[in-house]
Amino acid sequence: MTDPSRQFLLVDLGGTRVRAALGTTSDRLHGRLEERTYLVGGPEGTIEQIVRMAREVAAATRSDRSAISGLVISTPGPLDHRTGVVHDAPNMPGWHRVAIRDELTARLGWPVTALNDANAAALGEFSYGAGRGLHNLVYLTISTGIGGGVVVDGELLEGTSGTAGEIGHMCIDRRGPPCPCGNIGCLEVLASGTSIARRFRQRLAQGARSTVTESITDREVTAADVSRGALEGDRLAAEVFRDAADAIGLGVVNCIHIFNPEIVVLGGGVTQAGPLLFEPVREMVQRHAMAVPRRGVTVVPAELRDDAGLYGALAAGQARLS
Amino acid sequence: MTDPSRQFLLVDLGGTRVRAALGTTSDRLHGRLEERTYLVGGPEGTIEQIVRMAREVAAATRSDRSAISGLVISTPGPLDHRTGVVHDAPNMPGWHRVAIRDELTARLGWPVTALNDANAAALGEFSYGAGRGLHNLVYLTISTGIGGGVVVDGELLEGTSGTAGEIGHMCIDRRGPPCPCGNIGCLEVLASGTSIARRFRQRLAQGARSTVTESITDREVTAADVSRGALEGDRLAAEVFRDAADAIGLGVVNCIHIFNPEIVVLGGGVTQAGPLLFEPVREMVQRHAMAVPRRGVTVVPAELRDDAGLYGALAAGQARLS
Repeated sequence: MTDPSRQFLLVDLGGTRVRAALGTTSDRLHGRLEERTYLVGGPEGTIEQIVRMAREVAAATRSDRSAISGLVISTPGPLDHRTGVVHDAPNMPGWHRVAIRDELTARLGWPVTALNDANAAALGEFSYGAGRGLHNLVYLTISTGIGGGVVVDGELLEGTSGTAGEIGHMCIDRRGPPCPCGNIGCLEVLASGTSIARRFRQRLAQGARSTVTESITDREVTAADVSRGALEGDRLAAEVFRDAADAIGLGVVNCIHIFNPEIVVLGGGVTQAGPLLFEPVREMVQRHAMAVPRRGVTVVPAELRDDAGLYGALAAGQARLS
Repeated sequence: MTDPSRQFLLVDLGGTRVRAALGTTSDRLHGRLEERTYLVGGPEGTIEQIVRMAREVAAATRSDRSAISGLVISTPGPLDHRTGVVHDAPNMPGWHRVAIRDELTARLGWPVTALNDANAAALGEFSYGAGRGLHNLVYLTISTGIGGGVVVDGELLEGTSGTAGEIGHMCIDRRGPPCPCGNIGCLEVLASGTSIARRFRQRLAQGARSTVTESITDREVTAADVSRGALEGDRLAAEVFRDAADAIGLGVVNCIHIFNPEIVVLGGGVTQAGPLLFEPVREMVQRHAMAVPRRGVTVVPAELRDDAGLYGALAAGQARLS
């Protein structure tokens, strides 16, 4: 099916970094570039940056224009995969209904296809990372927010308008706090890095004690501080982190019941906590998931780290730009 | 694609009733039979009953043996669609690892394919009911328990071992009561008919007042009594039913975030309550679902009632037994 000579320009656009590379069907990334995302003045400046980086990658890899099948871009925020329009990118000022696909096609001349960043990472892990050779995968990225992507029988779950897989916005606590998404008690509002830090600070403000803040005077406490504190035996930090890990665990149980996957892959900054996160998650799965789907599933860390989006774009290019 | 001359024997096995019919690609059911499920002595007696009913349907419809492509059975409980083995059927004593497909093939001689009852109903509504002509559907049946089935891009979501779509066993209340499935605060334990009746009785036992029980002396209160009481202005009944409807609403919001479907179909006995259920559910969707997937979705009652399973079996036969 795959033509070994095909090449794709790959772009992974995030609220902080833009990455670009040339991908080939030999499954390698070439000429990888990374820059801070240019956000001044809204989408226009960012699109110019992407165009320049794509041209630089093509030049640096001495790619023949005709050998490149097209450009694949992974973007933040809900995106309609059929129209290539980014509905909203919460971390990128002014990004509202941006026709990223058509804008890039017009400026670069190549066919362009776009996918949501969490979906791209899910597809990357499925095709080149922890899910290689499997058929059904659930991916969660736990960092500033919580994103999700699902692969069903080898195909990315995209839904009617491209927003499927928003597992981070699944309510698991109907009496929980409201989430900016509109839902209540979502995984994201209970267990994202931002939420872990916020809940820790709230507990401190309510008078709870912790040694974590003793050494931090010049900045706000982060989720990484909380997980480090938990590892070092700080009780409040351990309690706050554990509560978030348990919430993730219940979210994973829900995904096991809903998707009956072979693998659940957890990525994103919060997973740097390692066993502090994975042990409670696996314990929740052991305790609360139904026997049949539980026996067939493993919960593992993501493998591709910062390159998951680029690899996912490569897989999407192979599937869509033929 | 479909051969108009193909015929299928269809069986919808439930813990209370067995239904059987002959289905054709002209989308009609013929020779429909219905009996109480014979449960004495475990699976053996039930399988004999199914074999007899299948033969009766074939005889009554004067079907030529060679014109019948095979038998499709919808069964309760988690089922492995690849092996045709029922893992467990909670409402049917002795049903544990029953090789229903192979047992029926051996006795009847036709090819047999099996699917889970909620999946069958979902597929029935998708192919012949409320979801006709669409691509992405989420189906929930709210009765004794809460079952679920999902259609993604026209295909039933089955998962790795056939247990996907268990939306009724999605936790939406991490501090909620345990569910017999192992999870906590599942939709089923918060909002099934059984749960509505149980929670109402618990509130009475705790001293709450209601007029609902005044006329009921010879039996236990049911969910239907609670919904009737709510319609007649009983405050406790209204409160208990509303809480369950809100829980269903949050479950539907989660499904909209996870699947981005065109339609969410609610069936099962509890949906007889009509607006008493659908209004709070739609209100939760308006209030808590993200704008993009919310704009593309409707929440509607199931259309096929008792025949959803047979119609789903027909659709599965057309897809699998060619």
